[in-house]
Amino acid sequence: MEKERAIQIDLCSSRKEKPRDDELEFGKTFADHMFVMDYSEAQGWHDARIVPYEPLTMEPSSMVFHYGQSVFEGMKAYLTPEGDAQLFRPERNFKRMNHSNDRLCIPPIDEAFALKALKQLVSLEKEWIPKAMGTSLYIRPFIISTEPFLGVAPSRYYKFMIILSPVGAYYEEGINPIKIAVENDYVRTVKGGTGEAKTGGNYAASLKAQEAAEEGIAQVLWLDGMEKKYIEEVGSMNVFFKIDGKVVTPALNGSILEGVTRDSVIELLKHWEIPVDERKLSIDELYQAHQEGKLEEAFGAGTAAVISPIGQLVWSGHHLDINQGETGAIAKQLYNTLTGIQYGEIIDPFGWIVPIEETDSSSLKATV
Amino acid sequence: MEKERAIQIDLCSSRKEKPRDDELEFGKTFADHMFVMDYSEAQGWHDARIVPYEPLTMEPSSMVFHYGQSVFEGMKAYLTPEGDAQLFRPERNFKRMNHSNDRLCIPPIDEAFALKALKQLVSLEKEWIPKAMGTSLYIRPFIISTEPFLGVAPSRYYKFMIILSPVGAYYEEGINPIKIAVENDYVRTVKGGTGEAKTGGNYAASLKAQEAAEEGIAQVLWLDGMEKKYIEEVGSMNVFFKIDGKVVTPALNGSILEGVTRDSVIELLKHWEIPVDERKLSIDELYQAHQEGKLEEAFGAGTAAVISPIGQLVWSGHHLDINQGETGAIAKQLYNTLTGIQYGEIIDPFGWIVPIEETDSSSLKATV
Ligand SMILES: Cc1ncc(COP(=O)(O)O)c(C=O)c1O
Ligand SMILES: Cc1ncc(COP(=O)(O)O)c(C=O)c1O
Repeated sequence: MEKERAIQIDLCSSRKEKPRDDELEFGKTFADHMFVMDYSEAQGWHDARIVPYEPLTMEPSSMVFHYGQSVFEGMKAYLTPEGDAQLFRPERNFKRMNHSNDRLCIPPIDEAFALKALKQLVSLEKEWIPKAMGTSLYIRPFIISTEPFLGVAPSRYYKFMIILSPVGAYYEEGINPIKIAVENDYVRTVKGGTGEAKTGGNYAASLKAQEAAEEGIAQVLWLDGMEKKYIEEVGSMNVFFKIDGKVVTPALNGSILEGVTRDSVIELLKHWEIPVDERKLSIDELYQAHQEGKLEEAFGAGTAAVISPIGQLVWSGHHLDINQGETGAIAKQLYNTLTGIQYGEIIDPFGWIVPIEETDSSSLKATV
Repeated sequence: MEKERAIQIDLCSSRKEKPRDDELEFGKTFADHMFVMDYSEAQGWHDARIVPYEPLTMEPSSMVFHYGQSVFEGMKAYLTPEGDAQLFRPERNFKRMNHSNDRLCIPPIDEAFALKALKQLVSLEKEWIPKAMGTSLYIRPFIISTEPFLGVAPSRYYKFMIILSPVGAYYEEGINPIKIAVENDYVRTVKGGTGEAKTGGNYAASLKAQEAAEEGIAQVLWLDGMEKKYIEEVGSMNVFFKIDGKVVTPALNGSILEGVTRDSVIELLKHWEIPVDERKLSIDELYQAHQEGKLEEAFGAGTAAVISPIGQLVWSGHHLDINQGETGAIAKQLYNTLTGIQYGEIIDPFGWIVPIEETDSSSLKATV
């Protein structure tokens, strides 16, 4: 582990031009530097370094191309009104990454060290955090298997990297309800599978359902893989429903991704003393509640969109309008509070914010 | 499609030294050249070329690293006693690749063209087919998504490649029964998932069960993901059982890979008028058959091992010896016939063999 401690820095000679805040596209432009560290059985994780963002040299036989051993995370850095950079619950992402690593037979990372490396990188790239309202710097930590070997077995070599991409506001004109379709044929994962892990294969498996969905469907709502009966989650969000005054979200069951936003939503609701239940929720129960006029709100929760109200749910030919297609009161309050905390506009009573200090990179600049 | 027709050739200046036939390790050494072709929405599949085997340059944001959109195939080139190179049912592999492509939202390849390219490549690399008994040249066609973009959506750019690796005999001292454990916790895939496709995520998902299996377990036997009751397949083989004089193999159900060897085994058994059933087979039925002394043989079937007799099946604490741990008569006959046909030692009444002509590469050499 000690080898990890020193982060070598190799700064680029000239900085790229940054996109204007109103031209930002999700995940297409990348900051000047990235963090990289390598793993080998002999050395463990080693050679931690911040280097210019540049292409990788990969053998055609690199295991990640063939056997999909990869994990990733997604979080954001935000700028406060005072111009300070901050992160939202980043330790949860590195903890989840190790959970994913375990499922995929990838060696664990030192979570505290990864956070330290991330803070250095973001401090160095602070200029890349866009300033306009709702914009942020998207952070993508990921691990890929790099051993040049075609046998089906855990790789003995890996690369851990963190890349950064400035992203625009998810909703151009404020928060807007979306249309979601319940998927009856394709399955994302099943208990005993990889659903709890953030690994590439889950997302590859999900593409076909989206392709098959009708026009105007923003994302699909997955049912459990065993009985195709219980609600799991949306493409890249966990999901919440307000039924008869109570908020309900599917309980973590081994196949649902444990979202950081999901956890924050539950904590906020409890803080506000709004009843919230984590339990099994079948699509039939949801349909019934809608028929009886008791389905009052529905929304997704995830890092990208924060809170995404669901205005219509499509299921087996039924088109269920929810809250007249409008954003509900709880969704709005959650969105405002979460973004308020993330952007440092309201105080954070939960200890969720991790500030980036100028000193996180000053030591590092001195070593160059 | 027309753009595919011309295959550009860039030969390497000097050839690598080949490993000795008795030093071959699976999937670690690669032939001098590889086949590559690119895909873009604007051009379709284009720039087909045979080039020196060399590393790829990949953006850190390449979609394959994040969202696992990849497919692959596995087959072999064999040398006959006359010194001719030949393939075994390669058209089935490219057909299956397109089936995988469809599930993973990857654009289809021209199967006939891919086969033509493969024949050219193998003809050019004929010297890389090892000569010792049971050795062959392993062929790995694969497709990876290459668009530098972090959005969850089908990539708009891909690379199709074929790489070649000389491999030793699977069984050093002839065909040898292995020990297999029934997996009760982890699941490889489920109906509606990606089990029918040869995609990286399935193999990444499978590693954990192998890691958790007891000493001496060669591979795990997967049960269906819904009820964890019905037998599906082994790690990289389909599976057959002889019960009370009849051969049984799980029917293709949407989550089992449709093996080329599986299909060939079924055809051979029918040809020999040995009764063979493709149907649902529960682990309880199998256990019952064993208790009644009716489980006469068990074996896996796949390209790597051809036929792999199963000498012991471990399930929930039971250790079931099969055929006293010896290779059964049917397994032996299938192994001898399949390898006999593949290596050109016995005639092929089924039209399974595709010879590689010297001319497959002569035209190509002329164009250099
Ligand atoms: C499948 C899936 N579920 C849920 C989420 C929400 O998780 P988080 O709130 O940590 O972003 C994501 C996105 O990260 C996801 O990909
Ligand atoms: C999961 C799986 N099942 C079955 C097989 C056997 O297929 P084939 O006979 O085409 O090699 C393989 C190997 O390719 C495999 O990976």
